[in-house]
Amino acid sequence: MSRDVLAAVREYRGTHGWRLLSEFAELLAIDNDTRDLEALGRNARAIATCFRERGAEMDVVERAGCAPLVVGRYAAAADAPTLGVYVHYDGQPADASSWHSPPYRPELRTYPDGRVVPIPGPGDPIDDDWRLYARSAADDKAPLIAILGAIDGLRAADLPPYLNLVFCFEGEEESGSPHLREYLETVRERLRADAWLICDGPVHQSGAPQVVLGARGYSGFELTIYGPVRELHSGHYGNWVPNPALALSHVLASFKDEHGRVTVQGFYDDTRPPTPAVLAALADLPAVEDALLHDLGLATAEVPGGRLVNQLMTPSLNIRGLSAASVGEDRRNVIPASASASIDIRLAAGDDPTRMLRLIHEHLAGLGYHVLDREPTDAERREHPRLARIDAEPGYPAARIPVETPIVTHLLDASARASGQPVVTMPTLGGSVPLHHFAEVLEAPAVILPIANADNSQHAADENIRVGNLWYGIDLWSVLLGTPWPGPTHDTHR
Amino acid sequence: MSRDVLAAVREYRGTHGWRLLSEFAELLAIDNDTRDLEALGRNARAIATCFRERGAEMDVVERAGCAPLVVGRYAAAADAPTLGVYVHYDGQPADASSWHSPPYRPELRTYPDGRVVPIPGPGDPIDDDWRLYARSAADDKAPLIAILGAIDGLRAADLPPYLNLVFCFEGEEESGSPHLREYLETVRERLRADAWLICDGPVHQSGAPQVVLGARGYSGFELTIYGPVRELHSGHYGNWVPNPALALSHVLASFKDEHGRVTVQGFYDDTRPPTPAVLAALADLPAVEDALLHDLGLATAEVPGGRLVNQLMTPSLNIRGLSAASVGEDRRNVIPASASASIDIRLAAGDDPTRMLRLIHEHLAGLGYHVLDREPTDAERREHPRLARIDAEPGYPAARIPVETPIVTHLLDASARASGQPVVTMPTLGGSVPLHHFAEVLEAPAVILPIANADNSQHAADENIRVGNLWYGIDLWSVLLGTPWPGPTHDTHR
Repeated sequence: MSRDVLAAVREYRGTHGWRLLSEFAELLAIDNDTRDLEALGRNARAIATCFRERGAEMDVVERAGCAPLVVGRYAAAADAPTLGVYVHYDGQPADASSWHSPPYRPELRTYPDGRVVPIPGPGDPIDDDWRLYARSAADDKAPLIAILGAIDGLRAADLPPYLNLVFCFEGEEESGSPHLREYLETVRERLRADAWLICDGPVHQSGAPQVVLGARGYSGFELTIYGPVRELHSGHYGNWVPNPALALSHVLASFKDEHGRVTVQGFYDDTRPPTPAVLAALADLPAVEDALLHDLGLATAEVPGGRLVNQLMTPSLNIRGLSAASVGEDRRNVIPASASASIDIRLAAGDDPTRMLRLIHEHLAGLGYHVLDREPTDAERREHPRLARIDAEPGYPAARIPVETPIVTHLLDASARASGQPVVTMPTLGGSVPLHHFAEVLEAPAVILPIANADNSQHAADENIRVGNLWYGIDLWSVLLGTPWPGPTHDTHR
Repeated sequence: MSRDVLAAVREYRGTHGWRLLSEFAELLAIDNDTRDLEALGRNARAIATCFRERGAEMDVVERAGCAPLVVGRYAAAADAPTLGVYVHYDGQPADASSWHSPPYRPELRTYPDGRVVPIPGPGDPIDDDWRLYARSAADDKAPLIAILGAIDGLRAADLPPYLNLVFCFEGEEESGSPHLREYLETVRERLRADAWLICDGPVHQSGAPQVVLGARGYSGFELTIYGPVRELHSGHYGNWVPNPALALSHVLASFKDEHGRVTVQGFYDDTRPPTPAVLAALADLPAVEDALLHDLGLATAEVPGGRLVNQLMTPSLNIRGLSAASVGEDRRNVIPASASASIDIRLAAGDDPTRMLRLIHEHLAGLGYHVLDREPTDAERREHPRLARIDAEPGYPAARIPVETPIVTHLLDASARASGQPVVTMPTLGGSVPLHHFAEVLEAPAVILPIANADNSQHAADENIRVGNLWYGIDLWSVLLGTPWPGPTHDTHR
């Protein structure tokens, strides 16, 4: 049966793929900076409309001061199993000046030579290796079009869906999902499902499809070190007034050594070691390191010879930005008044986000810093030789389900059928998604089901989706929707 | 005689001070970013016009691709001694967003309460403590209006000048004076003088006027450390891909320890120790440290208890800016592709700027860095685990004349008369001015004669001149112009 489904849907996208690409480009043209509530509202309404047009019941749930949560249901039969589908429709901020085409003006280009191709019309050929460039083309609007395309394909071939789907489309993922839990608690009854699929992230760097059993957690903070109350002439005061950029450099160097080891006391203490099943899955993963180093223009990994996947099983501390006065053309001969670093911590299974931030505080206190969560007063400046400010994002913990969870086997099968390739079982995504809410609030296992190409430049300039990966997503969703699944009631492990 | 001059000029500025302030505001309204050649040309022509209107012969000397040098002569009598006057008319770049009023829209405000006052008209009272805010109000257009005001005052009182003045107004000082030497070599014969007054910088932090015998030299560089060829998702790659912001922090921390000591090998080796006369001058300087720490909102100096002036006698290494990806509201969860620091080195007497930059190269090589002066190729990225780029500004050496130079005594006397206060003999300015060219090309001693208030926010936002300091400048130039000076031929030390 699934072969019929696949053949039918492939025929459909062969003739109607241009229409799906056009619909996707329209969705990507709606700017979705995670900080812009007004823009996020426009995205939520447009997405709800797309699903309503396919017969889904959709609801844009609003809360004052938050991006809406889009919830919905696409029904097969009352006794069919139900899968939950999570997608986020917000995007990271985009600095247009570093993009080759504007982030919210989708552009189709050949790859790797980068020739611009018009968005195809009926009958135009479409190459699997072309890329569609726009913010959120990969992260994370692509799964929306994959599901919409699968629904269209099944309906065009008059094939029935065997599953109920419930939808949860978030608009605050790139802001750290600050209201997701409260939202889920409000709509819990409408989101009952046998398992949740978190549709986000890329396939394996080897190009193999993957099913991912967990994700790293997340916390982050902005660190500011204070110098003089105003910028000073570096000649008249250099050597006498303490320089906050130098102090920040010493602090950052004290966080992590040059061998890739975080030197904040206790940083690795709570991390849960991998089980034998997880170690086996890790050992089975294709080696991608040499190709990745070549592609990324690197001579070695941070820990020379270290495998990428093993490094994802421990927490990371990453400097995601630095700023003090100006560099380059805009440089001024000053002692900066302050210096800032933005840092994210990725948590492995077992790590507690609040505890991690406490360790950072303790580390700074150990260096003699007086740490505030606001601007210092004049009196505080004059009292404390070492003065810092931390603005913390508490974030959320990592989550990981066992390899043996029954939905996992079903997804591995579906993915292998849709792709025609061996599929990777990945114990954890390096990135963070708030999986733990699904276990805790919705009481269902959550699995990550990525479709984007690994080199999608997610979060950076020139984000893109490979057309072939979009087709894989449509095929995968056709198989899932168009194939009976006995559901978790047949699960002997549960 | 000088008492008559002073009384006459003070009477003049009592009734005509408003006009000088207006003329100054017009000069400050001409934007003068040191990188903007077109704007600098407008400044040069406007300044030449101001001096021509007072009877000086002025010439705007142009060179392709350079800011013009304004040279000129204000003649007393053929046999009178001649003083050279150096001023620079370009300003540091100004980031308007951090100013209280736009940098090129001069605004007069009360101090310290900051009430805006209209630029005065005839008969309006003017308070010495008011401040005029604009880029280059202090650094370095103020001396222009001091000289213009002195010429006006003497002419209004029909008092003769006793000196010839030759002018050299530069437009590239804030860019490191890259063409000053070539310019001076071209116009050397027109700039013969018995001594040069470098009119730049602030009076002593105690408020006492000062005569400064030298300045620190300058060199600087932009340091970039390379990471992956593009920004990467910090979740998917954090812990595996080396972070260039962390590497930069380790490098910067290795430049200077937390006790204020530069740890680049050989950094202090060439610095000339102060002579006994210099040590005596240093010992005589008023203590300003406690008041400065209070004003700057600092608990301690970089070297706790260190005197500011002593720290100026050694070379400094200052981080004037940091940049990598984004911080704060614009932060993105990425591993940056590169991280940059902008650094200036202030040189003490004896230090060679080119050697200092060589020491930095050697230091980086000692840390295992492959150092380029351009972007790396893909092959270089893949070959070198530690890859850096240095863009160097060679700069120029420090200079210092002996305390016993005869013009120094004359300037100390004139300054004491004009200010009615004890005057400070300062062995060196902390800042840098290219004094050495005057000794080498024009074969004359060069002395720095500052008039600006010490808290003028030079190079930073809200740069300002205290009105009383402008008046001091006018008085000082009236005494210098209106009083006979026997000239250096009477110098027994020379």
